[in-house]
Amino acid sequence: MKEADQLYKIRHSLAHIMAQAVQDIYPNVKMGFGPPVDNGFYYDFDFGDVKVSEADLKNIEKKMYKIINQKQEFSIFYKPLDQAVEMLEKMGQNYKVEYARELVETGQAENGELSFYQNGPFVDMCEGPHVVQTSEVPIKGFKLDRISGSYWRGDEKRPMLTRIYGLAFETEEELKDYIRRRELAMQRDHRKLGTELELFLIDDEVGSGLPLWLPKGNVIRAELEKWAKEVEFKAGYHQVSTPSITKSELYYRSGHLPYYKESMFPPMALDDNNEYYLRPMNCPHHHKIYGFRPRSYRELPFRLAEYGDMFRYEKHGSLSGLLRVRAMTLNDAHIYCELDQVKDEFKNVIGLYRLYYDKLRLGNFRVRLSLHDPASDKYVKNEDMWLFSEQIVRDILNDAGVSFIEEAGEAAFYGPKMDIQIKNLLGREETVSTCQLDFVMAERFDLEYSAKDGTLKRPYIIHRAPLSTHERMISFLIEFYGGAFPTWMSPVQVLLVPVNEDCMDYCNEIANTLFESEFRVEIDDSSDSFNKKIRKGTTQKIPNIWIIGNEEVSNRSVTWRRYARQQNQLKVDFTSAVEKLQFMRSDRVMDNFDDVEI
Amino acid sequence: MKEADQLYKIRHSLAHIMAQAVQDIYPNVKMGFGPPVDNGFYYDFDFGDVKVSEADLKNIEKKMYKIINQKQEFSIFYKPLDQAVEMLEKMGQNYKVEYARELVETGQAENGELSFYQNGPFVDMCEGPHVVQTSEVPIKGFKLDRISGSYWRGDEKRPMLTRIYGLAFETEEELKDYIRRRELAMQRDHRKLGTELELFLIDDEVGSGLPLWLPKGNVIRAELEKWAKEVEFKAGYHQVSTPSITKSELYYRSGHLPYYKESMFPPMALDDNNEYYLRPMNCPHHHKIYGFRPRSYRELPFRLAEYGDMFRYEKHGSLSGLLRVRAMTLNDAHIYCELDQVKDEFKNVIGLYRLYYDKLRLGNFRVRLSLHDPASDKYVKNEDMWLFSEQIVRDILNDAGVSFIEEAGEAAFYGPKMDIQIKNLLGREETVSTCQLDFVMAERFDLEYSAKDGTLKRPYIIHRAPLSTHERMISFLIEFYGGAFPTWMSPVQVLLVPVNEDCMDYCNEIANTLFESEFRVEIDDSSDSFNKKIRKGTTQKIPNIWIIGNEEVSNRSVTWRRYARQQNQLKVDFTSAVEKLQFMRSDRVMDNFDDVEI
Repeated sequence: MKEADQLYKIRHSLAHIMAQAVQDIYPNVKMGFGPPVDNGFYYDFDFGDVKVSEADLKNIEKKMYKIINQKQEFSIFYKPLDQAVEMLEKMGQNYKVEYARELVETGQAENGELSFYQNGPFVDMCEGPHVVQTSEVPIKGFKLDRISGSYWRGDEKRPMLTRIYGLAFETEEELKDYIRRRELAMQRDHRKLGTELELFLIDDEVGSGLPLWLPKGNVIRAELEKWAKEVEFKAGYHQVSTPSITKSELYYRSGHLPYYKESMFPPMALDDNNEYYLRPMNCPHHHKIYGFRPRSYRELPFRLAEYGDMFRYEKHGSLSGLLRVRAMTLNDAHIYCELDQVKDEFKNVIGLYRLYYDKLRLGNFRVRLSLHDPASDKYVKNEDMWLFSEQIVRDILNDAGVSFIEEAGEAAFYGPKMDIQIKNLLGREETVSTCQLDFVMAERFDLEYSAKDGTLKRPYIIHRAPLSTHERMISFLIEFYGGAFPTWMSPVQVLLVPVNEDCMDYCNEIANTLFESEFRVEIDDSSDSFNKKIRKGTTQKIPNIWIIGNEEVSNRSVTWRRYARQQNQLKVDFTSAVEKLQFMRSDRVMDNFDDVEI
Repeated sequence: MKEADQLYKIRHSLAHIMAQAVQDIYPNVKMGFGPPVDNGFYYDFDFGDVKVSEADLKNIEKKMYKIINQKQEFSIFYKPLDQAVEMLEKMGQNYKVEYARELVETGQAENGELSFYQNGPFVDMCEGPHVVQTSEVPIKGFKLDRISGSYWRGDEKRPMLTRIYGLAFETEEELKDYIRRRELAMQRDHRKLGTELELFLIDDEVGSGLPLWLPKGNVIRAELEKWAKEVEFKAGYHQVSTPSITKSELYYRSGHLPYYKESMFPPMALDDNNEYYLRPMNCPHHHKIYGFRPRSYRELPFRLAEYGDMFRYEKHGSLSGLLRVRAMTLNDAHIYCELDQVKDEFKNVIGLYRLYYDKLRLGNFRVRLSLHDPASDKYVKNEDMWLFSEQIVRDILNDAGVSFIEEAGEAAFYGPKMDIQIKNLLGREETVSTCQLDFVMAERFDLEYSAKDGTLKRPYIIHRAPLSTHERMISFLIEFYGGAFPTWMSPVQVLLVPVNEDCMDYCNEIANTLFESEFRVEIDDSSDSFNKKIRKGTTQKIPNIWIIGNEEVSNRSVTWRRYARQQNQLKVDFTSAVEKLQFMRSDRVMDNFDDVEI
């Protein structure tokens, strides 16, 4: 949002209008800061001894409507510090006085003068910009939202002020849409669902950012991993397993030390006087495997894959559920190849992305070509190689018909990359997957191959992780699917609900058959009512409920109720039901979407 | 080997006889120490400027035969320090003089007197015991083995002496058997085979004891893990994944801190003032999963499984290949159950052991019931519970018809255990797998369940790891199989050897068919001769070589040569060959043994 945007002006003006309304109702209120923010605006108030709660927001809103309908015009005027302070003191605005002095002392006030905006009788120290008149504010496009506490200047030794938040958009539809999406996001928050569905656990005694995958969540991890390994086998990858710690030497060689040190855990010194680190990335270990003996061009492309454990130091405050963690497992691989193999290999990786993203129905992403920034010192110095490599990736993306945007300053320190940026339900964008072209590490690790012409050459290295870390990918999947997973990934695949005691034998027979075929099946043989059993299964978002009544027993069938199509029950004979289920698993059918027939 | 044993006396006497022979040949030699050891004896000599090499051993042996045949008698006499020193100085034995003084100074000489043994003209300061006369030594039961350097008193600032090793047994057969087993053990040493077959890599820059599993070795890991997970699914286990680090709090609760601290890596202090440790065991993380919400008796037995990464600090000098490492992955699980479920659960675990050990043909083990030692302070104080729990395990083993020995002082600090002790090719015994009954941790972690009678009770916990760590189990399998794995575990399952260019189309067709069915298949399309191709495949111990000649092309068959039965080639039509292979994989046929038909 830029300052020149109408929406910025609307939100900023709404902050003033809200303060004006609050002042009308609570004449002794003292004002702190009141900026426009993402999705709206807020203002901090000191109400003294008066209690103001969310119940009072409606009243303030009403007052705001009035002000807006009065078509008050916003105008600017300037005052030197002493006059400004005098005026603010007369208004009783001591927080504003403090800030005015600071602005002048720190040279932030142009010509030593402070700017004020006035609309109607209301005056606030402010740099603008604002709408021309209050009637430009869409009355149905905003809504006061909530109240929270906030220390003046964020300093817990200063007074606690009352912050009132408002939501504001240009149209009523946008406001409603945002509120609906926020509601959905709250319902689907992976931390909330992760607890309700018993997918993962974060425990104080184990540590923040260190999720423990509970049995049900681990199923999802394991199914993703199994799929990835099948796909990678077919695509000619070799799986390896490497230790998640290493001596510091390895990271001095790779350059992670000292350049990446702030994202790493502190070292452990052992008695043989070496420092050992938890690894923040798997690449150096794979380079060691490539380089442990001479390689020939006949072995290229050489593809090493590992669902590798990594550890990154993130500040405690930035940790969040599975999205931002300190321990993670990455769908990692490195492809060592000749220059003239780079295009095909990179394209094959794009093919994997398409396969995974199409299957998982993750459509809401954009592709970014992340370039170096010649002005920054965080990139390896070799301008020619940068331009050369960046052009290779650009050509590949164009050839492959990928639409992408370019952004400088987002490359890895060793090469350009293609990033997949996913928007969450609230529209915030995160990098999920990445594919990098590395022209640096082969040199640092002295990696070579004997080429067809007999010379020794350095391989190019592609780093790729289409399925991201389990943690990040599954946090998205939980939110995107609202916790309802397709049968193949689902912790419980079939819930059997017997209608009465007489159906139990048949129920057990079905359960045994499914269990023998390694399906995850449960029977609800509790004393709960039929409706409660169905409700429990639905709350648990179990993809398939098979209802077993007397009729089903007598004709050896099941009544199949899909989570994604609850109104649409199917009667299926038992043998075809098992066959269908087999197919849903082997073909990884996305039956958690209601447009999918089974 | 006890001092009173005849074999001990023989070996000790042989050390003297060797020194006597050496003195005969090299009159100016000075002697260091000369003890009996496992498998034989050695003696350290200072030969001054004279060069002595392994070529000289035959000559020394001949002289030894003579001495033995002279039936010299061993006799003991005593001397006070001054006389002893005078005698040793006269003999020019300055190392012995130094040691004699030390023995008296440190009070190790009884009555301040030193004992000497004499046989024929040879005298050595020695405490015995020895055989009565040299003819007791079996001439064909010993052999001088090799020469190495060794510092006097192990101190690198003191002179480097020459150590001559001899092998000695009571019979020629035992000596030959030992030499044969040693030869085999050297050929089959998992470190040697691990390098030759490219199974794993230990790299200086990554660190000692931190193996990197290369593509071929990782196949073995992955196949074992896949098998274990199938078996555990059927046995009602739930897989989980937990982080391999944790805050120190967790280990203070479990008692690993401070009691297990010396086996742990040093802590990492993070800015939030917490110490984080690499975990040496997975149990506390599993207890957290059990305990994260209330549990009911209906959920018991609750079985949590994880192929979990662990880290243990082992001294640099004790690290050895895959057998003793610092990073390992354990076939771990914990079973939480009621007291009256303990027997059945423990027996089921014994069933898993039998399944795994029978399948893998690991017959060469013994079972140990490891008990606490009431005199030691390394065990939880609760004598009644110890006796109670030990009796439970004893009863279970008896009921299950397991033959076992009991050993005190080998229990875990929290309970008794059943250990599987495997002997390697040289007869050295190591603990591979373990199953423990824990009556302590539920209390420490405040784990409960609501029992059928409505009361809250503590579960018993069984800790089990039948397939050991990947590292230790695979080190044994490599040595036991001599690097030749069964088809289902084998890095390359089928090698296709075309006899000429005309067979390539058919060869490629076979390869594609197998690859589509996810078999690991290679074609040797190099320009090597047919015989060389077969030799290469055999050296790589590939279980199945399919030879494809013109005849095979014309009748769509393969000539199948198994590694375990190289003389016995089979002609099989292609369709049945693929079916056979499918069966060998799905049934996990142990075709690396020559008694197995395929």
